Amino acid sequence: MKALILFAHGARDARWAGPFEAIAARIRRAEPGRRVELAFLELMTPDLAEAARRAATAGATRIDVVPLFLGTGGHLRKDLPPLVDGIRAAHPGLDVRLHEAIGENEAVIAAIAAAALAAARFGE
Amino acid sequence: MKALILFAHGARDARWAGPFEAIAARIRRAEPGRRVELAFLELMTPDLAEAARRAATAGATRIDVVPLFLGTGGHLRKDLPPLVDGIRAAHPGLDVRLHEAIGENEAVIAAIAAAALAAARFGE
Repeated sequence: MKALILFAHGARDARWAGPFEAIAARIRRAEPGRRVELAFLELMTPDLAEAARRAATAGATRIDVVPLFLGTGGHLRKDLPPLVDGIRAAHPGLDVRLHEAIGENEAVIAAIAAAALAAARFGE
Repeated sequence: MKALILFAHGARDARWAGPFEAIAARIRRAEPGRRVELAFLELMTPDLAEAARRAATAGATRIDVVPLFLGTGGHLRKDLPPLVDGIRAAHPGLDVRLHEAIGENEAVIAAIAAAALAAARFGE
């Protein structure tokens, strides 16, 4: 079984996670056979190690980690790679693949630009 | 003239801003008559007050502030409203409109979900 872990920053306010939960729910609907879970860098749970442990326990043979960050800064360049190395060390048989930040995707950039312009135009 | 200020978090790493600059460039191409600028909460410049001051000086009569954040947490609930109030106080004739986080937009959520799933599927 394949698992997709959506890695997000986390926040103190539980409402912050709403869009991330909506993204996960949408992927689950699109592909019910894939395990899709959120994991957080800080302030929310589970963290990446725990989400990976759960996926491995559930029988995942491959885990794709997709960072739900718009920009690629210190959190993704410095904090995340050791966390992914930790997963690989803890689960030697697991195929763990780290992907680029979702904000680097052209279709995501286009959707955000369109939504921002639509918001600004509203009521004009 | 109308101005759109894209409000982002900011980071130490200059490369972090790449997607945000791409979003701004895309909107400028779509609507050349609108002034489109980035502003940052911290670590990068200009801040929101400075971006608004520049827009007002350039002749803006309305400023739409669109937060380029995925989740709506303390930064948007607590830090941003006083900054917007500050713009209104500094520029009484300006029509300043604060919009919801871009991550609350359904089309953005759909685009992120599709991109995350495509990333996970790549190479399968």
